[in-house]
Amino acid sequence: MGRFSKMHGLGNDFVVIDARAHALDMTESRARAIADRHAGIGCDQLILIGNAPDADVSMQIFNADGSEVEACGNATRCVPLFVGRDVLIRTRAGLLDAKAVDGGASVDMGAPRFDWDAIPLAYAMDTLTMSASWEDLPPPAAVNVGNPHIIFFVEDLDAVDTARLGPIIETDPLFPARVNVNFAQVVGDNHLRLIVWERGAGLTRACGTGACATAVAAIRRKLVSGPVTVSLPGGDLVIDWAPGGTIRMTGPATHVFDGEADWSRF
Amino acid sequence: MGRFSKMHGLGNDFVVIDARAHALDMTESRARAIADRHAGIGCDQLILIGNAPDADVSMQIFNADGSEVEACGNATRCVPLFVGRDVLIRTRAGLLDAKAVDGGASVDMGAPRFDWDAIPLAYAMDTLTMSASWEDLPPPAAVNVGNPHIIFFVEDLDAVDTARLGPIIETDPLFPARVNVNFAQVVGDNHLRLIVWERGAGLTRACGTGACATAVAAIRRKLVSGPVTVSLPGGDLVIDWAPGGTIRMTGPATHVFDGEADWSRF
Repeated sequence: MGRFSKMHGLGNDFVVIDARAHALDMTESRARAIADRHAGIGCDQLILIGNAPDADVSMQIFNADGSEVEACGNATRCVPLFVGRDVLIRTRAGLLDAKAVDGGASVDMGAPRFDWDAIPLAYAMDTLTMSASWEDLPPPAAVNVGNPHIIFFVEDLDAVDTARLGPIIETDPLFPARVNVNFAQVVGDNHLRLIVWERGAGLTRACGTGACATAVAAIRRKLVSGPVTVSLPGGDLVIDWAPGGTIRMTGPATHVFDGEADWSRF
Repeated sequence: MGRFSKMHGLGNDFVVIDARAHALDMTESRARAIADRHAGIGCDQLILIGNAPDADVSMQIFNADGSEVEACGNATRCVPLFVGRDVLIRTRAGLLDAKAVDGGASVDMGAPRFDWDAIPLAYAMDTLTMSASWEDLPPPAAVNVGNPHIIFFVEDLDAVDTARLGPIIETDPLFPARVNVNFAQVVGDNHLRLIVWERGAGLTRACGTGACATAVAAIRRKLVSGPVTVSLPGGDLVIDWAPGGTIRMTGPATHVFDGEADWSRF
């Protein structure tokens, strides 16, 4: 038997398992079984908290399809709440410093990367205003914040058919690791609206790394000044960044319930 | 803080709450919040186990939209597993006798009703071969097994557009309490295939009361003889019934995990 907690950040929900005292072998099929919303516990992502030689804890992130991913901003905000204090977190995308704040957490998400081969793109081009576009969308920006993002700044977000365009762009051969697709609208000097088509997940209520990548691109293009409030369908995140620095993301994290399950049955 | 269990019957999943020692006021908004799969615990239906003057326990069933329903066969099979022994259950649809069997339960679902006003229908007609139909579907049968069902026996189940026809029939004025719509195909002397459009829920992986109503209608029409194996997308149920008697449904019930939540936050 093992204990777990169910948590969410802006409606992006997680099964968080403490594997520090008792290691848990996370296979793709076990992650899928746990994430199943009818026959399992149910979640968007499974978060495995372990020991790290160079940090307070390690965090591994598994999608509902069982695949492991590098970064998840909403999950990262849940870690201080789960551990009960400020933590330095080892992830596949780097070391993340997460501090508990009232109702959530403030996380240093590291420095964004802009080189075309760090996004990654299939071939060299400017990533602030890309020489590529799709239908009547404007030329996008690309940012890697632990995972790859492309950002379109549009005049009227409600007029964009995000559900149709998202999968077309996600799977374009320009993105060898596929891409998260961000559709953003500037609504104030430090306020953005954002809808994200997530790689492998589709339209979601909130994408923390998407909010980071979009705020960074908007600051680089001088469309807004930081700190930026990013309004997603699930709620707001505040993103702060200055050129040359690291990204700070502040927003809610919510504990829903604690549970106990027999992992050998998953 | 209150304890609960997550269970499922053929993939139809339930949050089961024991309100025998500590009563829990179940409002529509609280049921909706608990059933929410992202910000709550997540389930198709919420099952509240309480005390009954005339039975071992009472069972109340709430849909994910917060509305209370009379009967749920898949949930009924979970009650012996939850309570830990054979139980007589008081429900809004009557007294149900549920016995634990290996891997699940066998439940006496009571006697079916065939009178037009017990279904209920809007006006009098024969319910074994109804004088009503939709598009090129054959004349259906109607059965009430605690909740209202209509059953179409078709030649080729895969050729029926269940997702389109289901909601049209569910909301037809012929059914003043709406209706669960069963599409069945006879595949052997005591074997049926079944797809159910559930009232208020749409296409589901398994509907226990639909399997009961469909087997009863097939036995009445002498299309099969009991006991009948009913194959649903989520798995099989065995239904036994003879004219004048009560319906016995046997099938799986699965415990997934135990949890603890603060109900005041829902």
